[in-house]
Amino acid sequence: MIRKILIAVCTKALALLAKGRGLIDQGDIRLTAAVSPLRAEPARDKLEPVQHLVAEDMADVNKLIVARLESRVDLIPQLAGHLVSAGGKRVRPMLTLIAADLCGYRGKRHHGLAAAVEFIHTATLLHDDVVDQSDLRRGNATANAVWGNKPSVLVGDFLFARAFQLMVEDGSIQVLKILSDASAVIAEGEVAQLITANDTETTEAAYMDVITSKTATLFAAAAELGAVVADRPQREADSLRSYGENLGIVFQLVDDVLDYNARAADLGKNVGDDFRDGKITLPVVLAFERGDDDERTFWQRTLEDGDQTPEDFVKALKLMESHGTLKDSMSRATDYAERAKEAIQDFPESPAKAAMLDLVDFCIERIY
Amino acid sequence: MIRKILIAVCTKALALLAKGRGLIDQGDIRLTAAVSPLRAEPARDKLEPVQHLVAEDMADVNKLIVARLESRVDLIPQLAGHLVSAGGKRVRPMLTLIAADLCGYRGKRHHGLAAAVEFIHTATLLHDDVVDQSDLRRGNATANAVWGNKPSVLVGDFLFARAFQLMVEDGSIQVLKILSDASAVIAEGEVAQLITANDTETTEAAYMDVITSKTATLFAAAAELGAVVADRPQREADSLRSYGENLGIVFQLVDDVLDYNARAADLGKNVGDDFRDGKITLPVVLAFERGDDDERTFWQRTLEDGDQTPEDFVKALKLMESHGTLKDSMSRATDYAERAKEAIQDFPESPAKAAMLDLVDFCIERIY
Repeated sequence: MIRKILIAVCTKALALLAKGRGLIDQGDIRLTAAVSPLRAEPARDKLEPVQHLVAEDMADVNKLIVARLESRVDLIPQLAGHLVSAGGKRVRPMLTLIAADLCGYRGKRHHGLAAAVEFIHTATLLHDDVVDQSDLRRGNATANAVWGNKPSVLVGDFLFARAFQLMVEDGSIQVLKILSDASAVIAEGEVAQLITANDTETTEAAYMDVITSKTATLFAAAAELGAVVADRPQREADSLRSYGENLGIVFQLVDDVLDYNARAADLGKNVGDDFRDGKITLPVVLAFERGDDDERTFWQRTLEDGDQTPEDFVKALKLMESHGTLKDSMSRATDYAERAKEAIQDFPESPAKAAMLDLVDFCIERIY
Repeated sequence: MIRKILIAVCTKALALLAKGRGLIDQGDIRLTAAVSPLRAEPARDKLEPVQHLVAEDMADVNKLIVARLESRVDLIPQLAGHLVSAGGKRVRPMLTLIAADLCGYRGKRHHGLAAAVEFIHTATLLHDDVVDQSDLRRGNATANAVWGNKPSVLVGDFLFARAFQLMVEDGSIQVLKILSDASAVIAEGEVAQLITANDTETTEAAYMDVITSKTATLFAAAAELGAVVADRPQREADSLRSYGENLGIVFQLVDDVLDYNARAADLGKNVGDDFRDGKITLPVVLAFERGDDDERTFWQRTLEDGDQTPEDFVKALKLMESHGTLKDSMSRATDYAERAKEAIQDFPESPAKAAMLDLVDFCIERIY
């Protein structure tokens, strides 16, 4: 036990050290300057309305999450709890709760479904961190860094099963269909991402396809559940699905830009991780497309062959800046943000609707 | 692509070479002698009746499995198909089919559920092989050996989701409850196994608990589904569940003995794998319990510290032989085999019942 704690502490220390690897100082400051003129409002203000509206429900969801992490095998709540309590914003279960509110639902069914959504999300995070060999998430050491890959794979499986148990307790085949379909598409997206990994010739369309599957699908399902529990017509379920999907795309686009942004360190992300892992995200796709032969050779060496020097990250930032690819990625994000807002325009005005519109702005403004 | 094929071929060659590592010649022959006097019938004869009875249904299940492995991401059917088509006996889906036959069911619903059971099993195999870092399964290179750990984790997730999609198409919450509960217990068992891994002081009770969760639970669920599709009373579902659970325990006990048996090579297992991985199975638990201080030091060095020489496997076999632990493990298996048979005694005589009794004998006789 003491050995385990020692390993955990050392790993955490290593992870925190890695966070400050110092590859990003100069280039990063310039980058922030390059994208910040777009807007200037403090992002947190735009998250508050939805957090306030769902606060009571979310407290119940959190209790349910803790209760359903229980297992006769202690390591399961320890490992899963490490991630679940690591200060995520719970955006996905929040979507289920606020969408149900928008649909006028006043019962308790959505608590179990919101917990199921969070369990599916946490399971994919655990497996993602194993696949990506990440050591830091949300500013904390990842579960695989603390406990190793093996329990992370198996506890992910456990959470996935628990999610389905929660849906079974709810008893709706429609809910089970939405989340089992979503789970299959997410896994497909993850495998597709693995195939495009390190391929600098990935097109923007292929990139959009991957992030739609792996991220936006669960956002879409989470929001759609709000209409399902409220027993609203399919048209409203479709609108909420579209809202969730577009919001998910915004979320992932911004996340991928953040990986090249100074603010990211505050959000607990390893800045430059995507670059070091050779991940092909939109800022890279656009830079490769727009680059000359020398630049393409640079991207192939650093991202395909994984042959990097400490100066390469700063050079990557300069190339992105010169082609405006971070700014253009944010401009794509802003387009999807508009689509998300349009998707719910037919719902009557309400505090929930206003909060959902603010939530879209929040996802964009995380960058500043 | 050519690079991938080359890697696959080399890995396969390495795996086949590993199979013949030659650690087991002498000790193993003695071992077979030690357990073979119990029975002498050729095991295949006892598998034939059930295979014959479900042949037509199984052909449909196989078609369904191939159809539902399809994905717009080619790697998914490639990787999953590698394992699904690798010549497994399909014992678990077979259980669903024969149990439905026993209950007089004549429809088609059980095909989808049998496929779901096989998908859950295949998902756990993919994740198991990643966790165990195995390179050989059923005589073939494992998926993780050919394609690496990353796609194995993600394709496992995909299969798990597909299993739930198949259940959703069936539309029964009772079925979804049985298989989501089973999935949670399996994952718990796998995590528990990880904790007892390499601990030579594991008790027989702890070992039984792990194999009941990780193996017998899916056998139990698969058999129970037969009564559910046939809409039979709970009493019959419980009997079939008990049959499946006891059969699963027999299956795993025999599997663990086979890892120290010459015949195992014919079944495509890496003989001595459990020993090399430091896995604590019943033959080891009993040998440790019955050993003197010197012997316990041997088990601790080889299994806990993983400090092994090529001669150690032969010494392990000798210790097991001297304490009769392989024979006693088989005697435990025979007890559970009796319980499996008793569980279905109240069903009227039928070809299905006779085949299910034979199947129990088959699981025991795999050893010879």
